Amino acid sequence: MSLLVVGTVAFDGLETPFGVRERILGGSATYIGMSAGYFVDRINLVSVVGEDFPQAHIDLLNAHKVHTEGLQVIQGQKTFFWKGKYHLDMNSRDTLDTQLNVLEHFDPIIPESYKDCQYLMLGNLVPAIQMRVLEQLPNRPKLVVLDTMNLWMDVALEDLKKVLKKVDVLTINDEEARQLSGEHNLVQAAKAIQGMGPQTLIIKKGEHGALLFGPEGNIFFAPALPLAEVFDPTGAGDTFAGGFMGYLAQTDDISFDNMKRALMYAATMASFCVEKFGPERLEHISDAELAERRAQFTQLIHVH
Amino acid sequence: MSLLVVGTVAFDGLETPFGVRERILGGSATYIGMSAGYFVDRINLVSVVGEDFPQAHIDLLNAHKVHTEGLQVIQGQKTFFWKGKYHLDMNSRDTLDTQLNVLEHFDPIIPESYKDCQYLMLGNLVPAIQMRVLEQLPNRPKLVVLDTMNLWMDVALEDLKKVLKKVDVLTINDEEARQLSGEHNLVQAAKAIQGMGPQTLIIKKGEHGALLFGPEGNIFFAPALPLAEVFDPTGAGDTFAGGFMGYLAQTDDISFDNMKRALMYAATMASFCVEKFGPERLEHISDAELAERRAQFTQLIHVH
Repeated sequence: MSLLVVGTVAFDGLETPFGVRERILGGSATYIGMSAGYFVDRINLVSVVGEDFPQAHIDLLNAHKVHTEGLQVIQGQKTFFWKGKYHLDMNSRDTLDTQLNVLEHFDPIIPESYKDCQYLMLGNLVPAIQMRVLEQLPNRPKLVVLDTMNLWMDVALEDLKKVLKKVDVLTINDEEARQLSGEHNLVQAAKAIQGMGPQTLIIKKGEHGALLFGPEGNIFFAPALPLAEVFDPTGAGDTFAGGFMGYLAQTDDISFDNMKRALMYAATMASFCVEKFGPERLEHISDAELAERRAQFTQLIHVH
Repeated sequence: MSLLVVGTVAFDGLETPFGVRERILGGSATYIGMSAGYFVDRINLVSVVGEDFPQAHIDLLNAHKVHTEGLQVIQGQKTFFWKGKYHLDMNSRDTLDTQLNVLEHFDPIIPESYKDCQYLMLGNLVPAIQMRVLEQLPNRPKLVVLDTMNLWMDVALEDLKKVLKKVDVLTINDEEARQLSGEHNLVQAAKAIQGMGPQTLIIKKGEHGALLFGPEGNIFFAPALPLAEVFDPTGAGDTFAGGFMGYLAQTDDISFDNMKRALMYAATMASFCVEKFGPERLEHISDAELAERRAQFTQLIHVH
C-alpha cells in the first residue's frame, strides 16, 4: 500500500569512538525511507535539500525505492547540516553544530501523485510542518505515525499537542515520553500520552528495546539485540520507524497483533543500522541476512 | 533437590518516595529464601544475626520453608543493618547507614545435614566467606550460583576472582559487569567474565530485564514487566536469584533451555517484590497470582 514519508534529508558530521565522517548522507526521512524500502516497492518522499546536495545521494535514495518527486531542491541555499559526537558509551551524544539552512523556511508540498497515501510517516520535524502535511491530504490515511523529539516539547509544545490529536501512533524515546507526560513511570507516561491523541504509543529505549502500548491496555515488548559492537547509533530510531512502517504497509494490516510483528522487524532493521557509519549498512542487506537477523530476535526471547 | 542458600539476614531501613520503614526484615538470604520457597519445599539457610533479631522474623522465614538450623544467633551482638534512600526515579539510591555488626566476624558453618546440597546459592557476601562455604562441602554441588556487588570489586577483587573460578553461574547487574570486565559493551563484558570461571552469566538490568549468557555464545533475554507502580526495589535482585535457583532446584534440570525458563520465573518473582516494602509482597503470593503473572510475561513478548 502507498507509503508517504515526510522528514529531513541532511548532511551529517559524525564522531564516534570508531572514527569520523565529515559530511555524509543523513536525515530522518533518509533512514526511514531506506529502511522501509526493504518491505515495500515504493516510498514517496517529501523533504527539502539545498543546491549542494549531490545527485549521487538522490540516485542512492532512488535505488532504495525512495521516490524523490517530492524532494524540493532549493537553489542558492544549503542542505540541513547536523554534527554530533558520541561518547564512549554510545548512549549519549553532544550536538556540535546545527545549520538549519533550507529547513528554516521548509514548506512541504505534497505532489498530486502522493496524495492518495494510505500510510503516512511523519518523521521528526517542526510540529507545525507536520500539521501542514496532514492539511494537504484530501483523505485521511489509514495510518498516521508521527515521530518527534524533546526540542519540540521545549519550544513548540502547543503545536505538538495539536498534531498529536491527529495521529494514530507516536514513536518517541523513554526520556521524551517522560518529558511529554510529566510522569517518570513509563506505564503511566504511556497512559497520559494516549490521552493526548495517539491510540498507540511506541517508546524506544535504545539498547534496552522498545515498548508498544496499544488500546485497551495491551503492552508488547521488543528487545534489542545484544551486539558485540555498536559502531554508530545515528539514525537507529528512524531506521526502527522505517521498518515498522514498511512492514505495516507491506502487510496492510494495522491490528495490534500485526504491529507486534512490525516492531520485531523494526528492531531487526535498527540492529543493522548501528553496525556501520550513517546509513552505510542499510545500503546492502541481503534477504538472507534480514531473515537470519530476524530469526536471531526470535531465538533471543524463545522459551518453551 | 536440596538447596542451600548462604547470604545475609538483616534489618533494613528504607526510604522511598512512597514512605519510610525504620527497621524491617531484609538481607540477601531472606529474599532469596522466601522467593525460592515458592518452588521448593525446603531451603537450608546459612547466615548470622544478633541477639536483637526477633523470633517473629525467624518464624516468618520458617513459614516460608526456610530452615534456620544454619542461622547463627550471636549473643551480645547486633544484626547487620543497612539503611538506604531511593531517588524519585527508583533506579538510584544512596546508602545512608551501614552497620556490619555480626557480619564483621561471620564464619559460615554448614550444618552436617546441609552438606549434601545439590544446589548452592551464594548470596552477596565478602568473597572470602563465600569461598569458606565451598571449602566445607564434601562434594561439589550440581550447580553453584554466586551473586556479588561492586564493593567487592573495589576492596576484594583477588578474593572475588578466586571464588569466581569455582562457580557455574554468576549474577550481577550491568554496571558491575562493566566494572568487573573493564568492557562497556555487555556482550564483550560477558565474554570476558565467562573467561574468569563461570560458564553462565546473568546480567540483571533492573527495569530493563535480564540477559542470560550461556556457553557456546547462547544468549537469552528475559524482559521486566512494565509496572505502573514500583513501590520499593529493595531485594528485587535477590528475589530474582531466588526464583531462578528455586525453579532450577524444583525441576532439577540445569540445561540452558531450562535456565531460560528459570529466568522467566526469576523475573516474575522480582516483579512481585517491588510492589510493596521490603519482602512484604513475598509473604503472600497465591498460586493463581504466580501463574497469572508468569502468563503476563509470556504475553508481553508473544508474537506469532
